[in-house]
Amino acid sequence: MAAGGYSMTPLHDVLQLRVRYSETDQMGTFYNSRALEWFECGRTELMRRRLGLSYAELEARQVFLPLVEAHLEFQGGARYDDLLDVASTVAMSGRARLRFDVQINQNGSGKPVVRGCTMHAFADADGKPIRPPGWFLELMNKAAGISST
Amino acid sequence: MAAGGYSMTPLHDVLQLRVRYSETDQMGTFYNSRALEWFECGRTELMRRRLGLSYAELEARQVFLPLVEAHLEFQGGARYDDLLDVASTVAMSGRARLRFDVQINQNGSGKPVVRGCTMHAFADADGKPIRPPGWFLELMNKAAGISST
Amino acid sequence: MAAGGYSMTPLHDVLQLRVRYSETDQMGTFYNSRALEWFECGRTELMRRRLGLSYAELEARQVFLPLVEAHLEFQGGARYDDLLDVASTVAMSGRARLRFDVQINQNGSGKPVVRGCTMHAFADADGKPIRPPGWFLELMNKAAGISST
Amino acid sequence: MAAGGYSMTPLHDVLQLRVRYSETDQMGTFYNSRALEWFECGRTELMRRRLGLSYAELEARQVFLPLVEAHLEFQGGARYDDLLDVASTVAMSGRARLRFDVQINQNGSGKPVVRGCTMHAFADADGKPIRPPGWFLELMNKAAGISST
Repeated sequence: MAAGGYSMTPLHDVLQLRVRYSETDQMGTFYNSRALEWFECGRTELMRRRLGLSYAELEARQVFLPLVEAHLEFQGGARYDDLLDVASTVAMSGRARLRFDVQINQNGSGKPVVRGCTMHAFADADGKPIRPPGWFLELMNKAAGISST
Repeated sequence: MAAGGYSMTPLHDVLQLRVRYSETDQMGTFYNSRALEWFECGRTELMRRRLGLSYAELEARQVFLPLVEAHLEFQGGARYDDLLDVASTVAMSGRARLRFDVQINQNGSGKPVVRGCTMHAFADADGKPIRPPGWFLELMNKAAGISST
Repeated sequence: MAAGGYSMTPLHDVLQLRVRYSETDQMGTFYNSRALEWFECGRTELMRRRLGLSYAELEARQVFLPLVEAHLEFQGGARYDDLLDVASTVAMSGRARLRFDVQINQNGSGKPVVRGCTMHAFADADGKPIRPPGWFLELMNKAAGISST
Repeated sequence: MAAGGYSMTPLHDVLQLRVRYSETDQMGTFYNSRALEWFECGRTELMRRRLGLSYAELEARQVFLPLVEAHLEFQGGARYDDLLDVASTVAMSGRARLRFDVQINQNGSGKPVVRGCTMHAFADADGKPIRPPGWFLELMNKAAGISST
């Protein structure tokens, strides 16, 4: 799922976050669905920092990225107040989808916590599928250092 | 906060729900913010069953009830899979606000878990304050068995 | 992922639940991570109703089922207050894992909302892997109508 | 509720956080219960930074601070990706309770979003009330610059 080789692409970002008390469950570690919320935090910062276009701005331009598929592999625990590294990479997947690969590790020890990927469609404000806008693809290419000529 | 005398008003309803695993935290009981989500479940069912107008329909008519104030008193624990009674009562509070009083107890033992109240403004789709619509007040009066002549 | 042929196994259950307001996001549908919470509600009721052993009791016997893998496919929207059918099936996957397949549909129209599966390890209270207890496997076989002689 | 005069006490801290997509609801702003989760984030950082004792360490020493009362006043909206200042102050309330006052504002504009307070009991690992440990009170006094002689 989460591929290696993150360093090969500039469309990569690492966000640090702490496990909130509200994210734990009675097993003492984080509740599983929180991983999808952390993936979203990673996507948000990756877009802001690497594409120079926040997801909020993207939605303001009537481009939405609904989640169509998600895969998660739980690799190790994380407890309340643990500091985590959320490493995300983005790339187009085929012509119509955006794919984020995420690896969450313990900051410090580097112990793996969760890895996974999310696939996103492009949609308008009504949720109808649209083609990825040309300006968005150019933004991706520019950020990746790829000439679009 | 949560007043007694629930039986005095027909604008009262009891919803049963179970504590979800996702709602627990590492202390072994439910995480505190879940109480506000359960209050919302109580409001939703009270409106559907007693007013004959679901909150979804209310929003479809462009009437929104944003929360402006909430008070919570945590009285006792509730663990994963516990069955709870969420008893809610609604009334106007002054001319412009709707107030829900809620008492959550353990089903069976009746042990108190949380009580509290939420105060709601009336707003349009843009979040701007509006007067409570006449038809809504009539609905409230009708449901309460009060003649509006 | 979610296999067809649910009717072939008695280890199947359908839970109804309503989308909570707290589960929506600004796109107007449910936020994606809620699907994993609904999957958990489905597992909880399936175990109670079909195995005759609630997950709470299982944990009380020091048997935990941490999630190790999850796959989700988002098929269609669901809005606040929509009534959903959460259809879950459980089976052993190999010798050491429990697998739940879930299909969530709109109640009434039957329109698909999410499908997916979750894989669970068997662990003790400290999170260490254990073999599935014999009595648990017997319970599964008994519930499935399979003679264990 | 949230008192002024924050600057009068060193037991005060400001945490910045961004509204997550998962924290929005279909009204387009944050869902109300998230405020209690943000209050908790504020408490966590205040304790780490001002008391020099993280809440995780406090629990490791078998001292728990269950929430017994919460009051919230919703003052203004906050949308996905908004940067918020969570300003928290802590003080003993009587002999047996800890009180946090919180004011959440929009970073930049300073527009108020939510204010409130939470009251906490002192409890052991089983949830039974205990007296605030002497060493904890000394830590509070020391952090506040109060000589305990």
